[in-house]
Amino acid sequence: MHFSPRIESALGAAMAQAGGQGAPPRLAAALDHAVRPGGARIRPTILIAVAQACGEDRPVLTDAAAAALELIHCASLVHDDLPAFDDAAERRGKPSLHRAFSEPLAVLAGDSLILLAFDRIAQVGAHEPARALALTQCLAARSGMPGGICAGQGWESEPSVDLDAYHRAKTGALFIAATRMGAIAAGHDAEPWDELGAHIGAAFQIADDLRDACDEALGKPVGQDAAHGRPSAVATYGVRGARARLRETLGGAIASIPACPGEAALARLVTHYAERMAPQPAAAPPGAGRG
Amino acid sequence: MHFSPRIESALGAAMAQAGGQGAPPRLAAALDHAVRPGGARIRPTILIAVAQACGEDRPVLTDAAAAALELIHCASLVHDDLPAFDDAAERRGKPSLHRAFSEPLAVLAGDSLILLAFDRIAQVGAHEPARALALTQCLAARSGMPGGICAGQGWESEPSVDLDAYHRAKTGALFIAATRMGAIAAGHDAEPWDELGAHIGAAFQIADDLRDACDEALGKPVGQDAAHGRPSAVATYGVRGARARLRETLGGAIASIPACPGEAALARLVTHYAERMAPQPAAAPPGAGRG
Repeated sequence: MHFSPRIESALGAAMAQAGGQGAPPRLAAALDHAVRPGGARIRPTILIAVAQACGEDRPVLTDAAAAALELIHCASLVHDDLPAFDDAAERRGKPSLHRAFSEPLAVLAGDSLILLAFDRIAQVGAHEPARALALTQCLAARSGMPGGICAGQGWESEPSVDLDAYHRAKTGALFIAATRMGAIAAGHDAEPWDELGAHIGAAFQIADDLRDACDEALGKPVGQDAAHGRPSAVATYGVRGARARLRETLGGAIASIPACPGEAALARLVTHYAERMAPQPAAAPPGAGRG
Repeated sequence: MHFSPRIESALGAAMAQAGGQGAPPRLAAALDHAVRPGGARIRPTILIAVAQACGEDRPVLTDAAAAALELIHCASLVHDDLPAFDDAAERRGKPSLHRAFSEPLAVLAGDSLILLAFDRIAQVGAHEPARALALTQCLAARSGMPGGICAGQGWESEPSVDLDAYHRAKTGALFIAATRMGAIAAGHDAEPWDELGAHIGAAFQIADDLRDACDEALGKPVGQDAAHGRPSAVATYGVRGARARLRETLGGAIASIPACPGEAALARLVTHYAERMAPQPAAAPPGAGRG
């Protein structure tokens, strides 16, 4: 992606800050392990694309917001991989953080990444405090309770699940954060961007369900959704039905883009992701995995 | 303490927000378990006392900052109690969160409390964005990496420990946050308040070491410091020497209070805490424990 240098540079600045004077070296190394090299960086890419579509005027603030959003996503992956949750052995082709370091360092790394996200926005946003504070509030709300990704994960500990609240929070929340934060960083109203974020989040969830099911069909380790008894679009609609819903949802995403200077470019970006997102029955495209 | 109603009310508002529409009920209950009833609430008490000493003009912002600081402290206790760290069975006279609920909910509750802290400051601070953003930055820096409580805890995973960095970060960081955030909430410069926070943090650490050692002398379960091989003022100076250092440190705290309208009242508060803080050989005073 053409935003990749911006995103990696912003994350590099965050890592340099976290590993600064007085940092315990192993925890600093653990943070780096959690963040680099990354996945598809889809959330910060959407954030920057929306900021540009809105006529981005504070790129430094956009970059800090994009890094903060990705740091929160990385933190959630580290904690989701813990033995108490998925007990994942690998993440992004290398050992999961608690396997590579230790469980205490994985807990602390997740906490530190969450805190670093807010630190970065605050540091960079001093010249635009109102925008920076709105970014902080959006990121905190879409990550925590009652409606953020923590809440989404929390639904997995309930005896009965509110499926709408579960999906909206677990996968959707950070995509809505991506579109909202892009608008806020550029000084625009966030509200009109909710629908785009929600559509992209829903599409991502269906694509993820399809990939999980295709892995299983290909004889890879059994799909995590099936293994954990999680609700899945494939279980509900079948593979063909889920593909149709993915196309519809991405169409809805493009249709929901608010009128703005960069509307056409943003539609092209969503289409580009749509093509990468839908896994083929023969093989999932590289780099399109959980990011 | 006379600030208790303010602190509990601010924490109650935070809990109501976190348990709002869409919240998974068990995670919401876990957050409440982590926060109420509380310990001594010493950090938010110091924060409010400093804000008042500075001529507090935005009590709503002070309260949000005080609640945010206590939420971060509660989050750190929940994560420190996890099986991967202390595997504590109890906290504040009731089962630790992972024992009462589950380990996944304890991880998520800690994460959610951290996020809620920043959400509260951002929500309440919209009319004073510059102060609110400075509060955010201070809280994030004193909680995370490279110099906050996460860094302090991280030192326990290092093969060799920088003792100064360890103590400064693990116990001192949130006390410095308390004094700095009190000043910031009242629109004052934070810098002159560092020394008071550092002195109070050092005193608290010595008092904690003394209490830990006294528990052991009284035949209570072996002191956690000794059990975990942690550095301790008692191990270094002996009980009598540690008591002398506690008195000196509290004297230093009072001497370091910057000239301000409420200087005398703040000195009285520190003295009051000093008297409660030093445990007697016969029995530790109630309510003076790790808060």
